Amino acid sequence: MIDGTGKGAPGTGQRERQRGDGPRRQREIFDAALSLLAENGYERLTIEAVAERATVNKTTIYRWWPSKAALLGAALMGTPTLRFDVPDTGSLRGDLEALVEAILALLTKPPAADIAVAALAAAAHSPELAATARTFFADRLARENPVFERAAARGELPPDTDPTLLVDLLAGAVWVRVVLRQTPVGEDFARRTVSFVLDGVRPG
Amino acid sequence: MIDGTGKGAPGTGQRERQRGDGPRRQREIFDAALSLLAENGYERLTIEAVAERATVNKTTIYRWWPSKAALLGAALMGTPTLRFDVPDTGSLRGDLEALVEAILALLTKPPAADIAVAALAAAAHSPELAATARTFFADRLARENPVFERAAARGELPPDTDPTLLVDLLAGAVWVRVVLRQTPVGEDFARRTVSFVLDGVRPG
Repeated sequence: MIDGTGKGAPGTGQRERQRGDGPRRQREIFDAALSLLAENGYERLTIEAVAERATVNKTTIYRWWPSKAALLGAALMGTPTLRFDVPDTGSLRGDLEALVEAILALLTKPPAADIAVAALAAAAHSPELAATARTFFADRLARENPVFERAAARGELPPDTDPTLLVDLLAGAVWVRVVLRQTPVGEDFARRTVSFVLDGVRPG
Repeated sequence: MIDGTGKGAPGTGQRERQRGDGPRRQREIFDAALSLLAENGYERLTIEAVAERATVNKTTIYRWWPSKAALLGAALMGTPTLRFDVPDTGSLRGDLEALVEAILALLTKPPAADIAVAALAAAAHSPELAATARTFFADRLARENPVFERAAARGELPPDTDPTLLVDLLAGAVWVRVVLRQTPVGEDFARRTVSFVLDGVRPG
Protein backbone atom coordinates (compact mmCIF):
# COMPACT_ATOMS: atom_id res chain seq x y z
CA MET A 1 0.00 0.00 0.00
CA ILE A 2 1.21 3.47 -0.84
CA ASP A 3 0.04 6.50 1.10
CA GLY A 4 -0.84 8.72 -1.83
CA THR A 5 -0.38 12.01 -0.01
CA GLY A 6 3.11 11.34 1.19
CA LYS A 7 2.11 13.36 4.26
CA GLY A 8 1.76 12.18 7.83
CA ALA A 9 -0.37 14.64 9.79
CA PRO A 10 -4.14 14.91 9.22
CA GLY A 11 -3.83 18.71 9.34
CA THR A 12 -1.74 18.67 6.19
CA GLY A 13 -4.58 17.23 4.14
CA GLN A 14 -6.91 19.86 5.50
CA ARG A 15 -4.57 22.64 4.39
CA GLU A 16 -4.18 21.07 0.96
CA ARG A 17 -7.95 20.78 0.58
CA GLN A 18 -8.29 24.48 1.34
CA ARG A 19 -5.97 25.16 -1.57
CA GLY A 20 -8.46 23.28 -3.77
CA ASP A 21 -6.28 20.36 -4.82
CA GLY A 22 -6.34 16.74 -3.66
CA PRO A 23 -4.08 13.90 -2.60
CA ARG A 24 -1.65 12.34 -5.00
CA ARG A 25 -3.37 9.49 -6.90
CA GLN A 26 -6.69 11.36 -6.62
CA ARG A 27 -7.64 10.31 -10.16
CA GLU A 28 -7.01 6.64 -9.27
CA ILE A 29 -9.07 7.01 -6.07
CA PHE A 30 -11.99 8.53 -7.98
CA ASP A 31 -11.77 5.86 -10.71
CA ALA A 32 -11.73 3.10 -8.08
CA ALA A 33 -14.68 4.58 -6.17
CA LEU A 34 -16.80 4.98 -9.30
CA SER A 35 -16.00 1.61 -10.83
CA LEU A 36 -16.74 -0.15 -7.52
CA LEU A 37 -20.01 1.79 -7.27
CA ALA A 38 -20.97 0.66 -10.79
CA GLU A 39 -19.98 -2.96 -10.06
CA ASN A 40 -21.48 -3.50 -6.62
CA GLY A 41 -23.84 -0.62 -5.87
CA TYR A 42 -23.66 1.95 -3.09
CA GLU A 43 -24.63 -0.36 -0.22
CA ARG A 44 -21.68 -2.69 -0.74
CA LEU A 45 -19.12 0.02 -1.45
CA THR A 46 -16.42 0.35 1.21
CA ILE A 47 -13.52 2.79 1.63
CA GLU A 48 -11.30 -0.26 2.21
CA ALA A 49 -12.10 -1.66 -1.24
CA VAL A 50 -11.50 1.74 -2.87
CA ALA A 51 -8.13 2.04 -1.12
CA GLU A 52 -7.11 -1.44 -2.22
CA ARG A 53 -8.08 -0.89 -5.87
CA ALA A 54 -6.42 2.53 -5.99
CA THR A 55 -3.36 1.15 -4.12
CA VAL A 56 -3.44 3.87 -1.48
CA ASN A 57 -3.71 3.62 2.28
CA LYS A 58 -7.28 3.99 3.50
CA THR A 59 -6.18 6.69 5.95
CA THR A 60 -5.27 8.80 2.90
CA ILE A 61 -8.88 8.60 1.74
CA TYR A 62 -10.33 9.30 5.19
CA ARG A 63 -8.02 12.29 5.58
CA TRP A 64 -9.65 13.92 2.55
CA TRP A 65 -13.18 12.57 2.63
CA PRO A 66 -14.79 11.61 5.95
CA SER A 67 -17.40 9.21 4.50
CA LYS A 68 -18.13 7.18 1.38
CA ALA A 69 -20.85 9.69 0.42
CA ALA A 70 -18.30 12.52 0.62
CA LEU A 71 -15.80 10.52 -1.45
CA LEU A 72 -18.42 9.64 -4.07
CA GLY A 73 -19.60 13.24 -4.20
CA ALA A 74 -16.08 14.44 -4.93
CA ALA A 75 -15.55 11.62 -7.46
CA LEU A 76 -18.80 12.35 -9.32
CA MET A 77 -18.00 16.05 -9.53
CA GLY A 78 -14.35 15.52 -10.36
CA THR A 79 -14.36 12.67 -12.89
CA PRO A 80 -14.01 13.54 -16.57
CA THR A 81 -16.13 10.46 -17.40
CA LEU A 82 -19.40 12.22 -16.55
CA ARG A 83 -18.60 15.51 -18.24
CA PHE A 84 -20.00 16.56 -21.57
CA ASP A 85 -19.26 19.58 -23.70
CA VAL A 86 -21.91 22.26 -23.68
CA PRO A 87 -23.12 22.38 -27.29
CA ASP A 88 -22.98 25.54 -29.40
CA THR A 89 -24.61 24.70 -32.75
CA GLY A 90 -25.98 28.16 -33.50
CA SER A 91 -29.63 27.40 -32.66
CA LEU A 92 -31.58 26.49 -29.52
CA ARG A 93 -33.03 23.46 -31.32
CA GLY A 94 -29.61 22.21 -32.37
CA ASP A 95 -28.16 22.79 -28.91
CA LEU A 96 -31.02 20.95 -27.18
CA GLU A 97 -30.81 18.01 -29.61
CA ALA A 98 -27.07 17.78 -28.90
CA LEU A 99 -27.84 17.94 -25.17
CA VAL A 100 -30.33 15.06 -25.46
CA GLU A 101 -27.76 13.03 -27.43
CA ALA A 102 -25.15 13.74 -24.73
CA ILE A 103 -27.49 12.66 -21.90
CA LEU A 104 -28.47 9.58 -23.93
CA ALA A 105 -24.80 8.63 -24.33
CA LEU A 106 -24.17 9.29 -20.63
CA LEU A 107 -26.98 6.94 -19.64
CA THR A 108 -26.39 4.18 -22.21
CA LYS A 109 -22.64 3.90 -22.96
CA PRO A 110 -20.31 2.21 -20.48
CA PRO A 111 -18.45 3.09 -18.34
CA ALA A 112 -20.32 6.40 -17.88
CA ALA A 113 -23.75 4.74 -17.99
CA ASP A 114 -22.96 2.19 -15.28
CA ILE A 115 -21.61 4.91 -13.00
CA ALA A 116 -24.38 7.43 -13.68
CA VAL A 117 -27.21 4.92 -13.25
CA ALA A 118 -25.71 3.44 -10.07
CA ALA A 119 -25.10 6.90 -8.61
CA LEU A 120 -28.55 8.22 -9.44
CA ALA A 121 -30.23 5.06 -8.17
CA ALA A 122 -28.24 5.25 -4.93
CA ALA A 123 -29.08 8.95 -4.52
CA ALA A 124 -32.76 8.03 -4.62
CA HIS A 125 -32.48 6.24 -1.29
CA SER A 126 -29.43 7.68 0.47
CA PRO A 127 -30.07 11.11 2.00
CA GLU A 128 -26.33 11.74 2.25
CA LEU A 129 -25.73 10.95 -1.42
CA ALA A 130 -28.87 12.87 -2.38
CA ALA A 131 -27.20 16.07 -1.23
CA THR A 132 -24.39 15.24 -3.66
CA ALA A 133 -26.89 14.61 -6.44
CA ARG A 134 -28.43 18.03 -5.85
CA THR A 135 -25.00 19.68 -6.07
CA PHE A 136 -24.13 17.66 -9.17
CA PHE A 137 -27.35 18.67 -10.95
CA ALA A 138 -27.03 22.32 -9.94
CA ASP A 139 -23.49 22.23 -11.31
CA ARG A 140 -24.53 20.68 -14.65
CA LEU A 141 -27.42 23.13 -15.00
CA ALA A 142 -25.08 26.05 -14.38
CA ARG A 143 -22.83 24.70 -17.15
CA GLU A 144 -25.80 24.61 -19.54
CA ASN A 145 -26.71 28.26 -18.88
CA PRO A 146 -24.86 29.61 -21.95
CA VAL A 147 -27.23 27.57 -24.18
CA PHE A 148 -30.19 29.53 -22.81
CA GLU A 149 -28.40 32.87 -22.66
CA ARG A 150 -27.46 32.57 -26.34
CA ALA A 151 -31.01 31.46 -27.23
CA ALA A 152 -32.48 34.46 -25.39
CA ALA A 153 -30.05 36.78 -27.17
CA ARG A 154 -31.12 35.27 -30.53
CA GLY A 155 -34.79 35.86 -29.61
CA GLU A 156 -35.52 32.09 -29.50
CA LEU A 157 -36.77 32.04 -25.91
CA PRO A 158 -39.44 34.18 -24.26
CA PRO A 159 -37.97 35.93 -21.20
CA ASP A 160 -40.22 34.01 -18.79
CA THR A 161 -39.03 30.58 -19.94
CA ASP A 162 -37.77 28.34 -17.11
CA PRO A 163 -34.58 26.65 -18.43
CA THR A 164 -34.54 24.24 -15.46
CA LEU A 165 -37.95 22.85 -16.34
CA LEU A 166 -36.94 22.58 -19.99
CA VAL A 167 -33.83 20.57 -19.08
CA ASP A 168 -35.83 18.44 -16.60
CA LEU A 169 -38.33 17.51 -19.31
CA LEU A 170 -35.60 16.49 -21.77
CA ALA A 171 -33.31 14.74 -19.26
CA GLY A 172 -36.33 13.10 -17.61
CA ALA A 173 -37.63 11.70 -20.91
CA VAL A 174 -34.21 10.13 -21.56
CA TRP A 175 -34.04 8.74 -18.01
CA VAL A 176 -37.54 7.19 -18.13
CA ARG A 177 -36.94 5.74 -21.57
CA VAL A 178 -33.50 4.18 -21.18
CA VAL A 179 -33.22 3.56 -17.43
CA LEU A 180 -36.78 2.78 -16.36
CA ARG A 181 -38.48 1.47 -19.51
CA GLN A 182 -35.24 0.16 -21.03
CA THR A 183 -36.63 0.18 -24.55
CA PRO A 184 -34.37 1.08 -27.49
CA VAL A 185 -34.61 4.62 -28.85
CA GLY A 186 -34.83 5.29 -32.59
CA GLU A 187 -32.31 7.45 -34.42
CA ASP A 188 -34.69 10.42 -34.34
CA PHE A 189 -35.31 10.30 -30.57
CA ALA A 190 -33.46 13.57 -29.84
CA ARG A 191 -35.21 15.39 -32.69
CA ARG A 192 -38.68 14.16 -31.67
CA THR A 193 -38.13 14.86 -27.97
CA VAL A 194 -36.89 18.40 -28.53
CA SER A 195 -39.70 19.03 -31.01
CA PHE A 196 -42.25 18.23 -28.29
CA VAL A 197 -40.93 20.85 -25.89
CA LEU A 198 -40.20 23.50 -28.54
CA ASP A 199 -43.14 23.06 -30.93
CA GLY A 200 -45.80 21.65 -28.62
CA VAL A 201 -48.72 19.59 -29.88
CA ARG A 202 -50.59 21.14 -32.79
CA PRO A 203 -54.10 19.77 -33.15
CA GLY A 204 -54.49 18.10 -36.57
CA MET B 1 -45.99 -18.89 11.58
CA ILE B 2 -49.08 -19.62 9.56
CA ASP B 3 -48.90 -21.21 6.14
CA GLY B 4 -51.18 -18.82 4.32
CA THR B 5 -52.23 -21.17 1.55
CA GLY B 6 -53.41 -23.96 3.81
CA LYS B 7 -52.11 -26.32 1.12
CA GLY B 8 -49.28 -28.82 1.30
CA ALA B 9 -48.15 -29.80 -2.20
CA PRO B 10 -46.15 -27.38 -4.38
CA GLY B 11 -48.25 -28.40 -7.38
CA THR B 12 -51.36 -26.94 -5.79
CA GLY B 13 -49.91 -23.44 -5.80
CA GLN B 14 -49.03 -23.81 -9.46
CA ARG B 15 -52.59 -24.77 -10.34
CA GLU B 16 -53.98 -21.87 -8.32
CA ARG B 17 -51.61 -19.44 -10.03
CA GLN B 18 -52.88 -20.63 -13.39
CA ARG B 19 -56.37 -19.67 -12.26
CA GLY B 20 -55.03 -16.16 -11.68
CA ASP B 21 -55.50 -15.92 -7.93
CA GLY B 22 -52.92 -16.00 -5.12
CA PRO B 23 -52.31 -17.49 -1.72
CA ARG B 24 -54.37 -16.52 1.27
CA ARG B 25 -52.82 -13.46 2.98
CA GLN B 26 -51.52 -12.28 -0.41
CA ARG B 27 -52.31 -8.68 0.49
CA GLU B 28 -50.28 -9.00 3.70
CA ILE B 29 -47.37 -10.59 1.78
CA PHE B 30 -47.37 -7.76 -0.78
CA ASP B 31 -47.60 -5.11 1.96
CA ALA B 32 -44.70 -6.71 3.85
CA ALA B 33 -42.53 -7.00 0.72
CA LEU B 34 -43.12 -3.38 -0.30
CA SER B 35 -42.68 -1.87 3.15
CA LEU B 36 -39.43 -3.82 3.69
CA LEU B 37 -38.24 -2.67 0.26
CA ALA B 38 -38.97 0.95 1.21
CA GLU B 39 -37.27 0.58 4.61
CA ASN B 40 -34.11 -1.33 3.68
CA GLY B 41 -33.72 -1.27 -0.10
CA TYR B 42 -33.67 -4.18 -2.54
CA GLU B 43 -30.25 -5.53 -1.62
CA ARG B 44 -31.17 -6.20 1.99
CA LEU B 45 -34.67 -7.54 1.30
CA THR B 46 -35.09 -11.24 2.10
CA ILE B 47 -38.01 -13.64 1.62
CA GLU B 48 -37.48 -14.70 5.25
CA ALA B 49 -38.14 -11.15 6.50
CA VAL B 50 -41.23 -10.83 4.28
CA ALA B 51 -42.59 -14.14 5.61
CA GLU B 52 -41.99 -13.06 9.19
CA ARG B 53 -43.68 -9.68 8.78
CA ALA B 54 -46.64 -11.16 6.90
CA THR B 55 -46.83 -14.05 9.42
CA VAL B 56 -46.77 -16.73 6.74
CA ASN B 57 -44.37 -19.61 6.19
CA LYS B 58 -41.60 -18.75 3.74
CA THR B 59 -42.39 -21.91 1.76
CA THR B 60 -45.78 -20.32 1.00
CA ILE B 61 -44.02 -17.39 -0.64
CA TYR B 62 -41.54 -19.59 -2.55
CA ARG B 63 -44.42 -21.75 -3.78
CA TRP B 64 -45.90 -18.73 -5.55
CA TRP B 65 -42.86 -16.61 -6.37
CA PRO B 66 -39.50 -18.30 -7.01
CA SER B 67 -37.36 -15.21 -6.22
CA LYS B 68 -37.54 -11.86 -4.47
CA ALA B 69 -37.66 -10.13 -7.89
CA ALA B 70 -40.69 -12.24 -8.83
CA LEU B 71 -42.38 -11.46 -5.51
CA LEU B 72 -41.67 -7.74 -5.82
CA GLY B 73 -42.91 -7.75 -9.40
CA ALA B 74 -46.21 -9.27 -8.33
CA ALA B 75 -46.45 -6.91 -5.34
CA LEU B 76 -45.78 -3.80 -7.44
CA MET B 77 -48.37 -4.82 -10.03
CA GLY B 78 -50.90 -5.99 -7.44
CA THR B 79 -50.76 -3.32 -4.72
CA PRO B 80 -53.48 -0.67 -4.68
CA THR B 81 -50.92 1.77 -3.17
CA LEU B 82 -49.28 2.48 -6.54
CA ARG B 83 -52.50 2.76 -8.54
CA PHE B 84 -53.99 6.03 -9.64
CA ASP B 85 -57.25 6.75 -11.38
CA VAL B 86 -56.99 7.62 -15.04
CA PRO B 87 -58.27 11.21 -15.24
CA ASP B 88 -61.23 12.21 -17.43
CA THR B 89 -61.56 16.01 -17.12
CA GLY B 90 -62.96 16.66 -20.60
CA SER B 91 -59.74 18.06 -22.11
CA LEU B 92 -56.28 16.72 -22.92
CA ARG B 93 -54.71 19.60 -20.95
CA GLY B 94 -56.83 18.87 -17.88
CA ASP B 95 -56.16 15.14 -18.10
CA LEU B 96 -52.39 15.63 -18.43
CA GLU B 97 -52.28 18.10 -15.53
CA ALA B 98 -54.17 15.57 -13.39
CA LEU B 99 -51.71 12.88 -14.52
CA VAL B 100 -48.72 15.04 -13.49
CA GLU B 101 -50.38 15.70 -10.10
CA ALA B 102 -50.94 11.94 -9.66
CA ILE B 103 -47.29 11.10 -10.51
CA LEU B 104 -46.14 13.91 -8.21
CA ALA B 105 -48.21 12.48 -5.34
CA LEU B 106 -46.93 8.97 -6.10
CA LEU B 107 -43.31 10.14 -5.87
CA THR B 108 -43.65 12.49 -2.87
CA LYS B 109 -46.33 11.17 -0.48
CA PRO B 110 -45.56 8.22 1.80
CA PRO B 111 -46.03 5.30 1.77
CA ALA B 112 -46.36 5.25 -2.04
CA ALA B 113 -43.33 7.51 -2.54
CA ASP B 114 -40.98 5.38 -0.44
CA ILE B 115 -42.05 2.24 -2.29
CA ALA B 116 -41.98 3.77 -5.76
CA VAL B 117 -38.59 5.43 -5.33
CA ALA B 118 -37.00 2.33 -3.78
CA ALA B 119 -38.44 0.11 -6.52
CA LEU B 120 -37.38 2.37 -9.37
CA ALA B 121 -33.92 2.85 -7.88
CA ALA B 122 -33.51 -0.91 -7.47
CA ALA B 123 -34.73 -1.54 -11.02
CA ALA B 124 -31.93 0.69 -12.28
CA HIS B 125 -29.31 -1.84 -11.20
CA SER B 126 -31.08 -5.18 -10.96
CA PRO B 127 -31.65 -6.80 -14.36
CA GLU B 128 -34.24 -9.13 -12.86
CA LEU B 129 -36.24 -6.28 -11.33
CA ALA B 130 -35.78 -4.19 -14.47
CA ALA B 131 -37.93 -6.70 -16.36
CA THR B 132 -40.62 -6.04 -13.77
CA ALA B 133 -40.22 -2.29 -14.19
CA ARG B 134 -40.73 -2.66 -17.94
CA THR B 135 -43.93 -4.64 -17.38
CA PHE B 136 -45.11 -2.14 -14.75
CA PHE B 137 -44.57 0.83 -17.08
CA ALA B 138 -46.17 -0.91 -20.05
CA ASP B 139 -49.15 -1.67 -17.82
CA ARG B 140 -49.48 1.94 -16.60
CA LEU B 141 -49.14 3.27 -20.15
CA ALA B 142 -51.87 0.91 -21.34
CA ARG B 143 -54.12 2.27 -18.56
CA GLU B 144 -53.46 5.84 -19.75
CA ASN B 145 -54.46 5.03 -23.34
CA PRO B 146 -58.06 6.28 -22.94
CA VAL B 147 -56.67 9.80 -22.24
CA PHE B 148 -55.09 9.86 -25.68
CA GLU B 149 -57.92 8.10 -27.47
CA ARG B 150 -60.39 10.67 -26.13
CA ALA B 151 -58.02 13.53 -27.04
CA ALA B 152 -57.67 12.19 -30.60
CA ALA B 153 -61.45 11.87 -30.89
CA ARG B 154 -61.83 15.51 -29.73
CA GLY B 155 -59.27 16.61 -32.36
CA GLU B 156 -56.73 17.69 -29.69
CA LEU B 157 -53.92 15.40 -30.89
CA PRO B 158 -52.45 15.02 -34.36
CA PRO B 159 -52.65 11.38 -35.48
CA ASP B 160 -48.86 10.97 -35.51
CA THR B 161 -48.41 12.00 -31.85
CA ASP B 162 -46.45 9.45 -29.79
CA PRO B 163 -48.31 9.18 -26.44
CA THR B 164 -45.42 7.22 -24.90
CA LEU B 165 -42.98 10.06 -25.50
CA LEU B 166 -45.48 12.56 -24.15
CA VAL B 167 -45.91 10.56 -20.94
CA ASP B 168 -42.12 10.03 -20.67
CA LEU B 169 -41.51 13.79 -20.86
CA LEU B 170 -44.06 14.55 -18.14
CA ALA B 171 -43.21 11.63 -15.84
CA GLY B 172 -39.50 12.23 -16.41
CA ALA B 173 -39.73 15.90 -15.45
CA VAL B 174 -41.44 14.93 -12.19
CA TRP B 175 -38.84 12.21 -11.52
CA VAL B 176 -35.84 14.49 -12.14
CA ARG B 177 -37.34 17.28 -10.08
CA VAL B 178 -38.49 15.44 -6.97
CA VAL B 179 -36.27 12.34 -6.89
CA LEU B 180 -32.98 13.52 -8.38
CA ARG B 181 -32.94 17.29 -7.76
CA GLN B 182 -35.15 17.07 -4.67
CA THR B 183 -36.20 20.69 -4.90
CA PRO B 184 -39.76 21.70 -3.94
CA VAL B 185 -42.26 22.23 -6.74
CA GLY B 186 -44.53 25.26 -6.83
CA GLU B 187 -48.30 24.99 -6.94
CA ASP B 188 -48.35 25.59 -10.70
CA PHE B 189 -45.79 22.85 -11.52
CA ALA B 190 -48.33 20.61 -13.30
CA ARG B 191 -49.75 23.51 -15.31
CA ARG B 192 -46.32 24.78 -16.38
CA THR B 193 -44.99 21.32 -17.22
CA VAL B 194 -48.00 20.39 -19.36
CA SER B 195 -47.90 23.80 -21.03
CA PHE B 196 -44.33 23.10 -22.21
CA VAL B 197 -45.25 19.89 -24.01
CA LEU B 198 -48.61 21.13 -25.37
CA ASP B 199 -47.79 24.75 -26.24
CA GLY B 200 -44.07 24.56 -26.92
CA VAL B 201 -41.77 27.58 -26.65
CA ARG B 202 -43.03 30.65 -28.49
CA PRO B 203 -40.25 33.12 -29.25
CA GLY B 204 -41.04 36.49 -27.64
